[in-house]
This record gives sequence, structure tokens and C-alpha cells, in this order.
Amino acid sequence: MAIKIGLVGTGTVGGGCIDILAKHRTDFQRHLGVDVELSRVCSLNSAEAEAHGVGHLFTADFHDITNDPDIDIVIELIGGTTVARTVVLEALSAGKNVVTANKALMATHGEEVMDAAEAAGVEIAFGASVGGGIPIIGPLKHSLIANQIESVMGIVNGTTNYMLTKMAEEGVSYEQALAEAQAAGFAEADPSADVDGLDAAAKIAILASIAFNSRVTMEDVYARGITTISTTDLDAARDMGYVVKLLAIAHRTPQGIDVRVHPTMLSVGHQLATVNGVFNAIYVVGDFVGETMFFGEGAGAGAAASAVMGDVLEVARHLTQGVAPIVGCTCTDKLPICPITSLSMKYYMRFTAADRPGVLASMSSVFAKYDVSIHSMIQRGAAPDGTVNLVYVTHVAREQDVRAAIDEICALPNTVSGAPSLIRVEE
Amino acid sequence: MAIKIGLVGTGTVGGGCIDILAKHRTDFQRHLGVDVELSRVCSLNSAEAEAHGVGHLFTADFHDITNDPDIDIVIELIGGTTVARTVVLEALSAGKNVVTANKALMATHGEEVMDAAEAAGVEIAFGASVGGGIPIIGPLKHSLIANQIESVMGIVNGTTNYMLTKMAEEGVSYEQALAEAQAAGFAEADPSADVDGLDAAAKIAILASIAFNSRVTMEDVYARGITTISTTDLDAARDMGYVVKLLAIAHRTPQGIDVRVHPTMLSVGHQLATVNGVFNAIYVVGDFVGETMFFGEGAGAGAAASAVMGDVLEVARHLTQGVAPIVGCTCTDKLPICPITSLSMKYYMRFTAADRPGVLASMSSVFAKYDVSIHSMIQRGAAPDGTVNLVYVTHVAREQDVRAAIDEICALPNTVSGAPSLIRVEE
Repeated sequence: MAIKIGLVGTGTVGGGCIDILAKHRTDFQRHLGVDVELSRVCSLNSAEAEAHGVGHLFTADFHDITNDPDIDIVIELIGGTTVARTVVLEALSAGKNVVTANKALMATHGEEVMDAAEAAGVEIAFGASVGGGIPIIGPLKHSLIANQIESVMGIVNGTTNYMLTKMAEEGVSYEQALAEAQAAGFAEADPSADVDGLDAAAKIAILASIAFNSRVTMEDVYARGITTISTTDLDAARDMGYVVKLLAIAHRTPQGIDVRVHPTMLSVGHQLATVNGVFNAIYVVGDFVGETMFFGEGAGAGAAASAVMGDVLEVARHLTQGVAPIVGCTCTDKLPICPITSLSMKYYMRFTAADRPGVLASMSSVFAKYDVSIHSMIQRGAAPDGTVNLVYVTHVAREQDVRAAIDEICALPNTVSGAPSLIRVEE
Repeated sequence: MAIKIGLVGTGTVGGGCIDILAKHRTDFQRHLGVDVELSRVCSLNSAEAEAHGVGHLFTADFHDITNDPDIDIVIELIGGTTVARTVVLEALSAGKNVVTANKALMATHGEEVMDAAEAAGVEIAFGASVGGGIPIIGPLKHSLIANQIESVMGIVNGTTNYMLTKMAEEGVSYEQALAEAQAAGFAEADPSADVDGLDAAAKIAILASIAFNSRVTMEDVYARGITTISTTDLDAARDMGYVVKLLAIAHRTPQGIDVRVHPTMLSVGHQLATVNGVFNAIYVVGDFVGETMFFGEGAGAGAAASAVMGDVLEVARHLTQGVAPIVGCTCTDKLPICPITSLSMKYYMRFTAADRPGVLASMSSVFAKYDVSIHSMIQRGAAPDGTVNLVYVTHVAREQDVRAAIDEICALPNTVSGAPSLIRVEE
């Protein structure tokens, strides 16, 4: 008997899912012994459904899917945490399995969603919520389970990686890189979720929750974006043997989970350093497996649809064989989240400073006051008229000291202007 | 109730499995809801078991494991296709689930083993047979199943990758690189399985079988090793923008499966080009997911044990929840294997040729006779007294023509000596 699918959301990824089913349905029957049939499609406009040849399955009301007793699996591809949350919770409480690509929902209401699935005895799968088509949630929940995971670090936002790559390789400004990303369809008209690091924060919350068996929500994640990064920073990084990436980072520490998103200097020899353009990659360290990395397309219709349909087929395989959910919520531990201010590392800072005697001395005395030991200081790159770019690299320093020093330097009269660029160095 | 494990083989990887269980058994109970207990250990000498603190579980007779009605899962880590095959088949026919890291067994007797498991209604898992700790078989059987896989290419032999990296980076000879690999414990006293490409051939047979849903055995794989590669070749490759890797390659083509192992020139920009030393990586292209890559440690106790125990825990999870095997043999199609002679690509060749007039002309006429169009010819590097290294790069040519030309050139009187170095170019 065919497993019946209801699809809510017919944008880029939804369209990809329809295309996969149209192309491979008979392959799935032959290879996996499952027959998966698209039985209803819901979105805000019927044209998208018609464009993919499934106009006859269209409804504008998602209740036609969540209330349909014949539907076994609901795919939620609306995104966001309002209507999507309602669709997912109603589908689960109606006893339907749910597959979603919704990172924001899982990173903010993950516990509620997992609990609802468990209460209903159905599956909730969200492999497409992180890394587009890259298999990462599957390996963390299966192949790597014999390990204690020590670190998960990733380039998980294609938009900002595209922009940083453009800036580093072609020397274009932040503004131009953003404009090009928007023109190429990689960035939205309002790019804030990407460039402010919020998209990456949701994804690392999900990965950290699975990797460390302990719930991490989006609000636990310290997130800074790339809006203060300039080509001067990328050039300086290159001269020091680093590249700058917007990294989503989660480390297990004796004090708890260190989880954050920020521009990061990575040694050019690191496996993540060569991941360029819209590609994503997630680097995982386990106590027995050592270093592993998972690389692929982080966005795009096909890649995300591959992950969604992989989940759908996995659930369909279980339904066909009469298997109850095998893996439920994996957050069995309760680890604390390390406050970002408790961290210690090396920092790169660039200030736009006044070009006058005494500036260096007054800045130096502030660093000394807060015990921030400076490894190097260099004046470099173009700065607005009458100012200079001052680039500092610290020895290992405490985050709270660095921040206090920066705040005090920014408050000095006639010394620096604008927000400094702050990049953390990952060793 | 604890799931009881019988371990056959207590070498490097077996020791790693014992260590994982000792360290993480209570974690597995808490995180996965499974209790896994090592109940018997078999090997040729009890000292290995004692060294890992499980001397009290030792037996020298594997029948004490395959005949023990309390044992649920047998781990086979002997390797090879003789005793290991007996252990695996006896365990399966006794109704035990089997986890193995045995690439040779799966690549030669895979069908027999899969059939025996299916007949007994038990699971056979072999995630550690390819790529050490890298999750690759799991993703191919789960996360990526919505795709038609087009290509699987990998650096799957750590020994040869270590040697080629040494030769390229430090300019050491093949012989010295091999000696260093042996001294470091990366190569065996008899290195032929590694340097002749047979280890890689077994691994790509397994990967291709899963990726293309069609049985590929080791004897289907054309395999050439790295024994004719010199630093001259690596230098020439670098000058042309390539690196040389021993690649295991499997492509889906309209004519069938193109599967082979040989030294390969890869563009320096390819994701696999920067995989160095003993690391492994497998590059997978699917029709919807696009390019993906899986990277990690291809050998070593911890990495391989991570994969073995990942499989053990997956099976244990199924047993604890009363779930029958979910994924059996995936070879549901019967695709032909493309004969290597039918392929067309670009070739790099290096001959040790006599330094006398007429040599170039006679070689050129042979290439012309077989329709092998030459893109470039250059004399380079040191050669034995009285000879020169002649490096040719062809345009796209047919494998059978290139081979015929090489055979005829090698048979020319007073022209070339020794075996030429032949490297295929992967675009």
C-alpha cells in the first residue's frame, strides 16, 4: 500500500520534493520496497503546484492535509515559527509523521515538537534543517553514536560564505558582495538573518543538541554576524596565515557547552578553510573517530529536497515494515551553557582611529588595564580621511576583559570611530 | 536486558571496541536506551584480551561464541576471506547479528553473506569496511536514498595517500616513502594490497554496490597501484595544476558502471585534492544533492572501532526495541560493468627513453597510428644514465588505443626501458 504524503509549502524546496518523487517513485519501490505517493499539496498560491504538475492536488487550507485520515506523512516547508508550528503540532497530534526543514522551529520549539511526536507515537525528522543536502544529522544520530562528540564546527550559512569568499578572492567590498549575493539569489532582500548570524545560530543549536545529548536553543547561542568585516580584515588574515569564516561552533568543555556563532580566523591548513562560495561543511570531532568533515551544497532546491525526501523515505520504510519510531528525542542530559564572557582565546581587532600623537599610548594603556596582552599591532589598509586602521592581535585573553577594553577604548575622546571589527581566532 | 556481544579478533580495532565499551557503556544506556555487554572475546592469543582488561572473557575457539545461545551480536575483526567467512556464516546461521569491518569478505562474498543474513532474519552491518571511521555507508543507505547516485570517488587507502603526500611535499622517493610508512606503522611488511590498489578495489566495490543498487565484486574492479609513480610525475602534475592521488572511482554511465582504481590526476581545486596523509575522503555526487564529501581518519584503532561500535549500537537499538532488520541487501538492479578498455579520457605518460635521435619520431608515429592525439610532450627530471624522462599528456583518447600504443612503444628496439608511468586525468 502506498504511503501517502501531504506537502505544505511549495516554494523552492517543496518544488524539489515534487520533482524527486516524479522522477524516482518507481526507483524507490524497487530499491527500498516502499511506495510513496504525493496525495495533497498546500500553499498560498496554486500556481506553484501547477508549475510542478500537481495542480490537481492543490488546497489552500492546510487542514485538508492535517485532517485527512489517509495521509501518513506531512512535509512542512513553510518555515518560521508561527503557522509552521501550528501545522507541525496539529499534524503530530493527528497521529501523522512529520518531516520538516524548519531550523527556526526546531531551534526554538524543538522540545515541544519532540514531546508532541513522542506523545503521539510518531516520527519527527528534520535532517534538512541543517546543511541543506549534507548528511549530518543522520550520521550524528547513527554512525557516530559510539563517540562522545567533543566539537562540532561548521560553515552552515551559504550566503555569508559566498560573500566572504567574494570579498577575499576578488577584493570587493561588503556592500558589493551583498548586492551580488542578492542578485544571484543567494541573499534575501532583508539579509539580516544571514549576515547577523541568526540562521547559523539556529543550525548550531540543533547540531549541538544532538551532538551533546543536551537541549541547546537558539537563545543559548551567542551570535555575531559579518557586518563589520572589511576586505582589510581578510587581507590581514591572509598575511597571518588565516582565512575568515562565519563559523558556528559548539565545544564540549568541563564547564558545559561552549556554543557561539561569529567571524572566525581559521588556519589556512584547516579542512574548513577551503570551503568556499555557497558550499557548507560541518567538522565533527569525536573521542574515538577523531576528525571528520561533511561537505556539500548548503542550499538550493535539489540539495535541501534530497534531505527532506531522505527523511520521508526513511519514515516510509518504517511505516511499510510496521516499525515504531526508533530514535526519539536524544536530549537525555542537561549540560550547562558556558557564558561567552567566560571564554578565553586569541582576538583580532581592527579600529578606525584618529591619526594623532597619543592615540596608541592611550589605547595600549586600556589593554594593559584589562590584562589584554597584545601580540602584534600594525597600521594597515585604507581608512576614511584623517583616520588609520589599527589592527591588533592579542595573546590568549579573556572575552570579558577584551570586551571591557574595547568598550573603554570606544569611549575615549577623539580616539576611535565606528564599531571595531572583532574576529576570534580558532586554534 | 543487556545485549550480549561476542568479539572475534582482538587486534588494533578489536582493542578499540573493547575500550569504547569500557568508557561509554553507561552513556549508551542513558543516551540510546540500550545496554551492550561484552560477553566473550576470541583471538589467537589471550595476551591481547588481557591487555584490554578482558582476559576473563577469553576463548581461543570461535565456536564458543557462534554456539553460545546468549550472544546476540558477533563482531568479526579477523579479516581475510577464509576463517572470517566461516565465522560470519556460522554466526548468521546460528541466528546472530553480525558486525564486520571485513572489506575483502564483503567485496568478494558479499552476496553470500547478505543472503545468509536474510535467510536467518538477522542483520549484517559493515560500516567499518570502507573509510575507517568516516560515516559513508550509513549516509548512502539512509540520508542520500532520495538520489540517483551518479559518482562515488574516494581516497580510501591511507597508506598510499601517506606515501604520495610524502613524495609530493618532501620530494622523497617511492622507496623512502614506503619505508617511512612502514616505520610509522601505516604500511605492512608486505605492502602489496595497499600499493597495488587491491585494498582500494575492495572498498570501491562495496561503495559502488550500495550507491548503484547493483552488485559489484572485487574482480569487477580494474585496479592499478602506485608502484610506477615517481617524484618526477608528482612535480609534473603540480606544474600542470594537478595533484596525483590513488583514486577509487565509480561512475554511473549509460553503458553501465565504470569502476576502477588507479593513480589519478585531480585538479588542485577539487575537494579531494587537499586530502593528505593518512586521511581518507569519499566524494559522492547525486542527481538532487549535487556534490558532497565525507572526510576523516581512514585507519587507526579509534576510527575503525567507532564505525564498528556505531553498527553494534544500531543493531542493539533494533534488538532492544524488537525491530526486525530494516535495510537488507540493496542490490536490486543488475547493471553491467563497463570494460576499462571502452573508456575515454586524458592520459599522462612518462617513459624512460633512450637519448638518441629518432626516438621522438618513432614514438610519435606510434601514437599517431593508434589515433592518440598528444597535447604536450616535455623532457623533464632526472633519469638513469644515458636516458631521458619523456612526459606526454594526451587529449581525450580511448583507453584501448592508449594501451596498444604503449605496448607497441615498449616493444620498439632501443627506445624505452622499464614500465612507463601511466596516470589518468579525472576532469
